[in-house]
Amino acid sequence: MDYSKFFSADVPSFLRSPVREIFRKVDLSAICSFAGGYPAAVTFPTDQIPSLTAKVLEKYGTKALQYGATQGVPELREVIARRYGVPVSQVQITTSSQQGIDVCSRVFLNPGDVVLADNPVYLGALQSFKAYRAEVHSISETVASNIKFIYVIPDFNNPSGKTMTLEEREEVVRVARELDILIIEDSPYRELRYSGEPVKTIRELASERTLQLGSFSKIFAPGFRLGWIIGPEELLEQIYVCKQCLDLCPPVLDQYMAAEFMGSGALDANLVKTIAEYRRRRDLMLSLLEKYMPSGVSWTYPEGGLFLWLTLPEGVDTVAMYDEALSRGVAYVAGSFFYTDGSHRNTMRLNFSFVDEAKMEPGIKLLADIISHAV
Amino acid sequence: MDYSKFFSADVPSFLRSPVREIFRKVDLSAICSFAGGYPAAVTFPTDQIPSLTAKVLEKYGTKALQYGATQGVPELREVIARRYGVPVSQVQITTSSQQGIDVCSRVFLNPGDVVLADNPVYLGALQSFKAYRAEVHSISETVASNIKFIYVIPDFNNPSGKTMTLEEREEVVRVARELDILIIEDSPYRELRYSGEPVKTIRELASERTLQLGSFSKIFAPGFRLGWIIGPEELLEQIYVCKQCLDLCPPVLDQYMAAEFMGSGALDANLVKTIAEYRRRRDLMLSLLEKYMPSGVSWTYPEGGLFLWLTLPEGVDTVAMYDEALSRGVAYVAGSFFYTDGSHRNTMRLNFSFVDEAKMEPGIKLLADIISHAV
Repeated sequence: MDYSKFFSADVPSFLRSPVREIFRKVDLSAICSFAGGYPAAVTFPTDQIPSLTAKVLEKYGTKALQYGATQGVPELREVIARRYGVPVSQVQITTSSQQGIDVCSRVFLNPGDVVLADNPVYLGALQSFKAYRAEVHSISETVASNIKFIYVIPDFNNPSGKTMTLEEREEVVRVARELDILIIEDSPYRELRYSGEPVKTIRELASERTLQLGSFSKIFAPGFRLGWIIGPEELLEQIYVCKQCLDLCPPVLDQYMAAEFMGSGALDANLVKTIAEYRRRRDLMLSLLEKYMPSGVSWTYPEGGLFLWLTLPEGVDTVAMYDEALSRGVAYVAGSFFYTDGSHRNTMRLNFSFVDEAKMEPGIKLLADIISHAV
Repeated sequence: MDYSKFFSADVPSFLRSPVREIFRKVDLSAICSFAGGYPAAVTFPTDQIPSLTAKVLEKYGTKALQYGATQGVPELREVIARRYGVPVSQVQITTSSQQGIDVCSRVFLNPGDVVLADNPVYLGALQSFKAYRAEVHSISETVASNIKFIYVIPDFNNPSGKTMTLEEREEVVRVARELDILIIEDSPYRELRYSGEPVKTIRELASERTLQLGSFSKIFAPGFRLGWIIGPEELLEQIYVCKQCLDLCPPVLDQYMAAEFMGSGALDANLVKTIAEYRRRRDLMLSLLEKYMPSGVSWTYPEGGLFLWLTLPEGVDTVAMYDEALSRGVAYVAGSFFYTDGSHRNTMRLNFSFVDEAKMEPGIKLLADIISHAV
């Protein structure tokens, strides 16, 4: 039976995530993976989960297992509102931060619309924008019209690891105000700072036109699939109506657990440990790159987040190199996947949060060896 | 600031769920609500949840808190595949059955496409189809072209409470094969049968073109927001790619809990109690309707599910009557909301699963009184 005729006009624009495809085929535990954006399992408050569950059920009873409000349970919206200093009415809970990106795409984008974005750009966002048949251009490009919003990860960018300076953020705001467009400030890593000083968020600079996306994946655990959007009520109202169709409401027990974890201070206590853990891993990876990488290879020094970005000598092709790397037991994501035009084939993204410290040295050494032979 | 210009062309087609809007404004515990499709909290395995959490973490460790596969965790796909006698490759886990409807809409519908559906039809499905600017027609209507799929709830329909006979299902299959279109068999209530004999599913009759949607909301707890799609691999493959954009993967800890609950037999044990509970509530509501409703009012006798459907004498307007009902402390959903043309204003949907048995008699008595005055 030929099913192809059944698919909507959007379907040919669906991109597969090369990262998700890797995970579909490879047993991660068997290799040294610098590929994904997975947090370290040691940072999860695993031991606390059973007692957290019991506490939530004791406190909220069967309400925690029933359908909940589409905006999210009030208790979770309140702790987020308090933490970030905004009214509860400006907080919408999402079933993952990825859903935040998707629902914004759905509510704002028509086919042919333009998104100005980081370049390289987060793959999940690129997938979502493309799936609505939008065009994605670099912020620095001059494009004609139909620009709907600017999409940026200002803190510890995925994939580049870079953090925007205050001046760069102000420039984003200036452009958005001049063009009278919205800004989506994707902020999943902001709480994970290992050095340097926090910079004002874009939401703080332009709250009238910014939708800021938050995530519990890196500060609690990704298995909960919980995120949030902070933004103007008029925009959240349409996102709320759209979300009724998407899944009625976010997972309820998970929301109460997140509310309890964040509200009780346990999240902050866990965050201190998480930051110490990731700072050590970042520093280790940086020192190993210094030690093993051949000359001509450069990389970013991320102040936080989960990634750094390698630039190899011109002519080295990280896409072509990938199969060999995987067969020898090390994985990364080729940098060109993060470029809308597939350029920059001499770059790669490395994740430093997931791999055990013990595996990191042999992994980087192996990668350096593969790169040395490709140069 | 005027935000209206930012919205996509789909947004004007977003419908608000009148049911969700009721829940947004009214404290359900203060009234007698026959409105929602909420399961009874007594059917939730509340006492088992903490030990289930502990067991899952012991068995799967931090994997239960990490990102998972987009198709769902293998353990949950396997227990579902086993239960329904299909290969694992034909099972996609969804973050709620509502997401199943939405992702099918997204993957199959273009603006202007036609869906043939139950009439009256499940509101969440109507919302989703309309949000993609599809037209929704009754199966019995003759429409010209662009028909993409048939959408039906064959078992204990929401809202009508009716169950399709084998002949009616075969007719759906005949039409689908003649037009060469897909069938979405929405099946959230099938396991909740209180009398009569099961009828073959549409999937069993036409597996080559049927996507069957299942849900944990009525057999475990809706707070978990977990459902599944069983269907041809070629269709699931595109749904999988789409789901990467939607939320990367379904909630992972919740999936392991569902897998453990279903796989261990605890779900079936709980289901026996749930069915007994709902059978009693259904029978009670039917006897109360018999006792209190004025002549000229008729209703369906559901063999399962959560709803029955009242038809009042012509001229009685359940939309107009609603505010009075709510102010006097009883809620229902006006039947016309379930019709794409807003007709049948003399009908209403009553839910018998949510209201405590003790509240049911005063509730039905009150409703009968309001109806009597409106006749």
